[in-house]
Amino acid sequence: MSSEATLLFGETYHHPSIYWRTRFLAPDPIVYLETDEDRILLVSPMEVHRARVQGQIERVLSYEDFDFTAIQRGSSGSDDAYAQLIAALLRRFSILRVRVEPDCPVSVARALERRDIEVVSSGPIFATEMRSKSAAEVEAIRSSQQAAENAMAVARDLLRHAEVRDGFLFHDGDALSSATLIGAIEAELLRRGCGADGTIAAGGPASANPHVADSGHLEVDRSVIIDIFPQHKQTRYHGDITRTYVVGQPSQMWLRMYEAVRDAHQAALARLGAGVNGREVHLAVCAALYEAGFSSLVDDYRRPGTPEMIHGTGHGVGLLVHEAPRISDLDMELREGDVVTIEPGLYHPDHGGVRLEDTVLVTAGGYRNLTDYSMEWRP
Amino acid sequence: MSSEATLLFGETYHHPSIYWRTRFLAPDPIVYLETDEDRILLVSPMEVHRARVQGQIERVLSYEDFDFTAIQRGSSGSDDAYAQLIAALLRRFSILRVRVEPDCPVSVARALERRDIEVVSSGPIFATEMRSKSAAEVEAIRSSQQAAENAMAVARDLLRHAEVRDGFLFHDGDALSSATLIGAIEAELLRRGCGADGTIAAGGPASANPHVADSGHLEVDRSVIIDIFPQHKQTRYHGDITRTYVVGQPSQMWLRMYEAVRDAHQAALARLGAGVNGREVHLAVCAALYEAGFSSLVDDYRRPGTPEMIHGTGHGVGLLVHEAPRISDLDMELREGDVVTIEPGLYHPDHGGVRLEDTVLVTAGGYRNLTDYSMEWRP
Repeated sequence: MSSEATLLFGETYHHPSIYWRTRFLAPDPIVYLETDEDRILLVSPMEVHRARVQGQIERVLSYEDFDFTAIQRGSSGSDDAYAQLIAALLRRFSILRVRVEPDCPVSVARALERRDIEVVSSGPIFATEMRSKSAAEVEAIRSSQQAAENAMAVARDLLRHAEVRDGFLFHDGDALSSATLIGAIEAELLRRGCGADGTIAAGGPASANPHVADSGHLEVDRSVIIDIFPQHKQTRYHGDITRTYVVGQPSQMWLRMYEAVRDAHQAALARLGAGVNGREVHLAVCAALYEAGFSSLVDDYRRPGTPEMIHGTGHGVGLLVHEAPRISDLDMELREGDVVTIEPGLYHPDHGGVRLEDTVLVTAGGYRNLTDYSMEWRP
Repeated sequence: MSSEATLLFGETYHHPSIYWRTRFLAPDPIVYLETDEDRILLVSPMEVHRARVQGQIERVLSYEDFDFTAIQRGSSGSDDAYAQLIAALLRRFSILRVRVEPDCPVSVARALERRDIEVVSSGPIFATEMRSKSAAEVEAIRSSQQAAENAMAVARDLLRHAEVRDGFLFHDGDALSSATLIGAIEAELLRRGCGADGTIAAGGPASANPHVADSGHLEVDRSVIIDIFPQHKQTRYHGDITRTYVVGQPSQMWLRMYEAVRDAHQAALARLGAGVNGREVHLAVCAALYEAGFSSLVDDYRRPGTPEMIHGTGHGVGLLVHEAPRISDLDMELREGDVVTIEPGLYHPDHGGVRLEDTVLVTAGGYRNLTDYSMEWRP
């Protein structure tokens, strides 16, 4: 082995780069070491067999190969113990210098430095590779997106068959609330092997706030924004879709907002392609909304007091539901294999919100839409 | 303000200390600054209103109060941009030195240091306070535990009514598999407002591996370990329960393992109380198992080749499903307000596994069991 290595450390449910590199899903911290010649996975004794069977790293060592229990007994705390364990692993392979991902805990980095290991943090190591989705990854995302579409259909059907009484929506005699929709959506996702945390079904005034999930009893003639972003429990890849519905008759202003968002969505898709600057895509969205009489946060396209686009146009989707690249007011070259959302929206405290979101694959010549679901506002 | 502050940075779905301190659930990174005199939450413009309404920090500032878009445009990447944002916030309040949690990203710590901010990482800041659960937190855990018990009952009923054909279990004519159980368990959890990621229902040989979730078609006369650890979607607190069932007739060896684990569980509970060393609790478990003819990883209580306890006796439960304190072969004083699992287990490649787990509150004089569910192996 060379004297330098890439070091990853953490549990893999919420550290996508470690999961992506090892394909070993572990609830407790694991250590991964990679040089030009070798790849080593270090796990607790309890996990050795499972790591060999389920992970994709051939060489699996056990914490106890480095006397971890003794290390823990002599350490000042959990981070210090892990640092000692990692230092012992590095000594075994004569590694003096490690590259770490930006989210490496500062406590571990400093504990290694105290043991004369040089710790280099110079930006994400695997982010570029992780952006470029393989055919299998695209298939996994498409599958989660299909589950999201099925769940959207369940919510749409609840709205379609809602009864209206005193301005509020009911289903089978019970109040139809955001919570009802979210429950039905997440049950459908679960049937399709997906979990979801944070599903949004925001009605009326709450729909003016992009991250408000729940606003109680839903009303007639008011918008309901439904944003579904499941993660498949096995593959761990996400999908992401948003649609906006109105039961009854929306206001003229809301219909104008809806038309503008749909046109902005089309304008964004028309610009997509490898080599395109994401900022151009975002500016196309803001320009389209501005020309329709609305506002954005971009200086040239502001109209204070009118419904406003208060977020970026999109974000990467993969092992994280929000990952690189962002499509926003910042320069960011899109590449072949990026999977991104396109999700223009307009929000106003009185008129409510509209957001329409697809998840698409960026290709050399344009894009492939991984979403196949009507944008119609009537449920 | 003083020239020193506590700094927290990250999204709060998976950074419990930030959520615990701010009670603001946010999918994108937020910044929290605390001095003796003041507490400040810094969020994206889109989140300002929601943070004011939903969080418990009075003073909420927006990224744009510090020209974050301009910062991002001039930065070398996302971590660098956040570090510049944080540095601007610190300058505004004349803070020269920050204490950070151990999981602070090394990239952010170094970027702050490059801007002449001293970054102090000397162990967990809030871990001690977070261990001591308030009455409301205990209630939230009890509620998640209740959901876990309801889900366990659903799985038990599927096993109880299973048909046996050619040594395998069936339900309504379909194969009864680990996946069937997990699906039914997670659907029940969802009905009770909880999500779950990693639910275990491991039958036969797979039950010998504590973290194997799924082992296909379930068999008669073989153990099925069911480990359910839901997180409530609103409160974010977990429950944790494990039971082991056999449909049909277990082997004599397995029955001995089961009796030994149940006795070890009792031995652990009998030792619990504020001021007790968790290691004593673990050694009581290992001793009980050893006296029954079985093995553990503790030197004095090893019997190579016999079914073995290959993990600790328990762990804290709260906003994380695995948190401090650990009850293991390491010294760790238990305190009033700790919520911990007690989960002895025995595993053997041929005989399968047994694990029995309750979640309990440590009290001054002993414990209060937050679990109320039979340990009977017959479903």
